[in-house]
Parts: sequence; structure tokens; C-alpha cells
Amino acid sequence: MERTEISSLGEFGLIDHLTQNNETRNASTILSVGDDAAVIDHFGRQTVISSDLLLEGVHFDLSYTPLKHLGYKAVVVNVSDIYAMNATPTQIVLSIGFSNRFALESLNEFYEGVYAACEEYNVDLVGGDTTTSLRGFVISVTAIGEVAPDKYVKRSGAKSGDLICVSGELGGAFLGLTLLEREKRIFEETGAQPDLEGQTYIVGRLLKPEARKDIIEYFAEENILPTSMIDISDGLSSELMHICKQSQLGCVLYEDKLPFADDMKEFAYKLKTDPTACALSGGEDYELLFTVPQSDYDQIKLNPSVSIIGYMTDEGEGKSLITRGGNKHALVAQGWNHMKK
Amino acid sequence: MERTEISSLGEFGLIDHLTQNNETRNASTILSVGDDAAVIDHFGRQTVISSDLLLEGVHFDLSYTPLKHLGYKAVVVNVSDIYAMNATPTQIVLSIGFSNRFALESLNEFYEGVYAACEEYNVDLVGGDTTTSLRGFVISVTAIGEVAPDKYVKRSGAKSGDLICVSGELGGAFLGLTLLEREKRIFEETGAQPDLEGQTYIVGRLLKPEARKDIIEYFAEENILPTSMIDISDGLSSELMHICKQSQLGCVLYEDKLPFADDMKEFAYKLKTDPTACALSGGEDYELLFTVPQSDYDQIKLNPSVSIIGYMTDEGEGKSLITRGGNKHALVAQGWNHMKK
Repeated sequence: MERTEISSLGEFGLIDHLTQNNETRNASTILSVGDDAAVIDHFGRQTVISSDLLLEGVHFDLSYTPLKHLGYKAVVVNVSDIYAMNATPTQIVLSIGFSNRFALESLNEFYEGVYAACEEYNVDLVGGDTTTSLRGFVISVTAIGEVAPDKYVKRSGAKSGDLICVSGELGGAFLGLTLLEREKRIFEETGAQPDLEGQTYIVGRLLKPEARKDIIEYFAEENILPTSMIDISDGLSSELMHICKQSQLGCVLYEDKLPFADDMKEFAYKLKTDPTACALSGGEDYELLFTVPQSDYDQIKLNPSVSIIGYMTDEGEGKSLITRGGNKHALVAQGWNHMKK
Repeated sequence: MERTEISSLGEFGLIDHLTQNNETRNASTILSVGDDAAVIDHFGRQTVISSDLLLEGVHFDLSYTPLKHLGYKAVVVNVSDIYAMNATPTQIVLSIGFSNRFALESLNEFYEGVYAACEEYNVDLVGGDTTTSLRGFVISVTAIGEVAPDKYVKRSGAKSGDLICVSGELGGAFLGLTLLEREKRIFEETGAQPDLEGQTYIVGRLLKPEARKDIIEYFAEENILPTSMIDISDGLSSELMHICKQSQLGCVLYEDKLPFADDMKEFAYKLKTDPTACALSGGEDYELLFTVPQSDYDQIKLNPSVSIIGYMTDEGEGKSLITRGGNKHALVAQGWNHMKK
């Protein structure tokens, strides 16, 4: 494979190179890459902003993460936060730090993924920073979005009796991570090539997640305004706890309503793991968790991408999970708490 | 000194702790820390956005950088980019990654500096991300600002004949860095305590820079609209090259017009270094470099914080420096190019 040293371009040559095919898709993008800052005009709509830091060795492992997928995912996890506000992402700012073991070809691959995600989610890359790092690849993405005044959805607006809903299927990304970590260990110990046969679903859920743009479009079309919403990056349990805490409510969750993909369940059983535990505590599904008033039930139940998994209660009733067998357990937050690792 | 392990709080407890005294200063800040994203309403003004990544070992050295100063500086370098667009900073988003050698007391110190800068520059901290890092302290700041429609100033608007102006004094931060690096080496080799006697000016320029809010206010009061502007983070020469390239012009710079502080000149001579070289190639001064039409001359020359240091020419005339002795040298870009280190 060809290897071009980044030092042959210099910092500004590198920025020119990485942004030469950068397109502008949003009318609100007035001034983009190439100045001290970008300029955005949201024409009377409200601006939504969110930021995530992704660090090699903490958030991703380059031994099994293709750089193109990593670039794509870095954008997806950020636009997902914008959708979780019921807003539409419009711009991103991307900063990267990389060591001299990176060749230009590697950065090209990473940016291919970034631009593919920008196209998929219709966002403009409008700026950022590039720098060397002593060790490890560092990625910081800030996403900006827009929302009609006062249509944004917070975590704190849920009401007692509201239905708890979730998009898509849960727990897949966690199993994808488990599989890739296992295959990596086997490779390191024995040199055996990874066996990912038949596991494209769970591996894809980890390496190439998508943000639920379709759900936000569905809300707009059907005139649904959730009372609270959050995206699932740390696991269902931890995210639901945030909604409970910020809305000062309790909740009841039904185990038999949790949505799982068949491929996910099959692999979980193979590992003798409980799919429910994967959904509750496994992160990175990037599905949307939201609450709606009971009056929206007839409408919501028609959407095949949404599952109604429980309801909100008064705070005093606590947070519980009703198991398949009908037993009631206290829900515990066991998200992907990086601090406790 | 007390040491509280961050793990005793957990990630969300930590965020609550670090943001408990976070105040909102701008009416445009509608929703702040605590959701998937912040919400901003700029009431018909244009939004300006900029981002910087600061990595330990590349951009700062914790052996001689107090964490409080580092927090302050992380905000300053970003609001400086917003001022460089002729805009007013209104919000910042701050993400940090830190290893387990950090105690809560260290993060408190860092955030003290962050909040002090937020107060000084009247900006709201509205969100971000906290995570562990395997090695090194990682800081990413995104600053948001506002500007009246079409009053923002780009790098590309300079015209031939425009005056080149710079705020404040140059080269001090570079000498501060030189001094601190020298004292660190001596300490490592001999154990001798750093001797910073009488060098508070240059050390302050490096460790506690300020952004030129006053210059932007002066422009507004006096109805001056620069034709181009950039902040000096990489050195005068490199920044002026950006303006030349993006405006497709050349320039003439006068060595005897470059502004130096007496303390800076004295230390430069002690080191047998040329103050001009420090100004041209030393970074991190965070002064504003801008161009104005010649018709603004009478007004600009009255501002004691601004020096007129040259003028823009047609592109064909090249980029040159007229030395004190009257010789003409080609200007070369020797900014702090992290890529080439």
C-alpha cells in the first residue's frame, strides 16, 4: 500500500487536501472551512449543539476498526445527539489529533467515512482543527442542528403515565464488541484469523451504526412531539435513568417488550448471555428512547420501527423491570460508565 | 493536598459537580448542560463557530502549566477565533479526556480557570463530553458566537493598498515558552528551582493570554469594518501569509513598525535572539492581525493598542519585509507548524 508522509504536505496543505471535495449542502452554511470560524445563519430557527470526544483505546480499537467506518461513526454518534433533541443536524466541526505513524492514505480513508456520513445525514463539515498527537488517535466532533422555536425535546419533559418507546433493536452493538474483542484475543494468542462468519449484523451494529433520522422525520410527518427523548449510547437502563432523574419520575419496563434482532438473540444464546442484560447495559446502539402521552398510542403502535416498552410512573413508585415470568425487579443503572473502568 | 478519586463520583456525578455553579449569561442560551445537546437562539443574528484541540505534550506541558491557567487559556484561544471573525462569543462547548492520575481537585482547578474565562468573556458553558483517556490530558473546545448579518470579517477580503494592522505586542509568548522550557531542562538536570525572576511579562503572555475583546468593541464603537482579520496563534508571518493567500495579494511589512514590549526585547537580547524573528515565527500571542482601507488611517492611528505595520500589494509584488537597515527580504512562513515538529 502506498504511504505518503503527512509532513510532506504541512498542516495547511493537509487541510486543503482533506477538504478539497467538501460540499456545502445547507443554505444556513454561510462560511465554511478556511477561516478562524464558520458562519451559520439559522433564519429564525433555534440552533442545537452537541459535542463528543472519541479516544483511541477508550472508544475504539484500530486493530479491528476500519478507518472509514470510524470516520462515519464519529459523525453518526454526534448527529444522533442532535436527533435526540428532535432537531435536524446541519453542520459539524471536526478536530483530529494523530501521531506520525499515520500516513496520508489513512487520513484519506477516515475522511472518506466522514464525508459519506455528511452526505447520508445532509450535514456540512464547516471547520475544525488538525494537530499531531504524541500517542493515539484523538477525534472531537461538534454537531450543530436547527429546530423550529420551542420544538426541541429535552430529557426532563416526561409525565407520569407517558408511554416509553424505543426505535429499532437493542443490544447488538454490545455483542459485536464482545465478538470482536474475543477474536482479537484469539488472534493475539494463536494467530488465528478472526471468525466473523454469519455475524455481520452484530458487527455492523458496532462498526457502522446509523442515527435515527427516519424517526425524527416520522415525528414531523405525523405531528408527534415526544415529551422527552435521549439517544442510547450508554445502554437502555442508564438512559432511562436520565429521563427519570431529569423528569423526576419513576418507570415500569416490560422485559417481553424489549426489541431484539434474531441474529442478536442467537449469538447471545451461543455466548450464554442474556439478551435483556445486553439491551439494558450494553451501549452504542444509537437508537432513540422517548416518551409520548398515552393519547399517541394508536398512532405510535402503527410504526413498525418503534416498540412501546413500558410507561412512566410517579417518582415514589421507583424504577422497575417486569420480567418475562412476571416478577418485578429494581432497575439498576449499569451503563458503559467509562469512569469506572 | 486532598485527593478525591474521580471514580467515587461516577461520570454523571462528575458532570453535576463540575457544572453546579455554571451560570447562564446570554439570553441566546435557551438550554444548557444536561441534555443531548444545547439549544441556542441567535434572534436573527448569524452564528459563528470555531473549535480547537489541545493535547498534553503537544500544546501544553503540565510540569510548568498550572491547571487553572490551562482552563483559562483553553477558553481564550477559542474566543480569540470568534473575535477574529469580528463576532462576539456567546457559548462554549468543552470536552475533556483525562487519565486516572487526575484527582477531582485537579479537575476543579482546571474548571476554575474555565469559569473565570467564561466570566471575563461573558460566554456560557453549554455542554460537552467527559471521558477517561489512556494517556495525557485532552481538551477540545468549540466556541460559538454571534454577529450582525454580514458584518463578519473573513481572511479573504483584503484589498491592495490596505493597511496591515496588529493589536498589542508580539513575540512575548514564544520567549515565555523558551524560558520555561530552559528552566525545566535545568531542573531536570540539576534539580535547581526555576528562576523566573523579572520575567512575569513573557511568562504571563504564554500561560495566561487574553483575547482582544477590546479591539472588537473598538471596531463597533468607531464603526470600523476591517477588510480581513485573523488571530495570531502561529506567528505573524504565517498568519499574514494566510491573508495574502486567501485575498490573492502580496504585502510589505516594516520591521521598525513591529510592536514589542520592553521586557520582551530585553529578554530576547539576553538570549541573543532577534525580537523580529520571535514576532514573525513565534506563536500564541493571540493578538489580532487585520487590514483596513487607507481611508481609516487617521482613525486607526489614534488607538494606542493598534500598530500599523505595513500594507497589502498586488500578488505579483510578492511578500516582503523591509528591515531596519532598509533592505528588502522575502517573507517566509515559519509558523508553529506542529506537523513538522
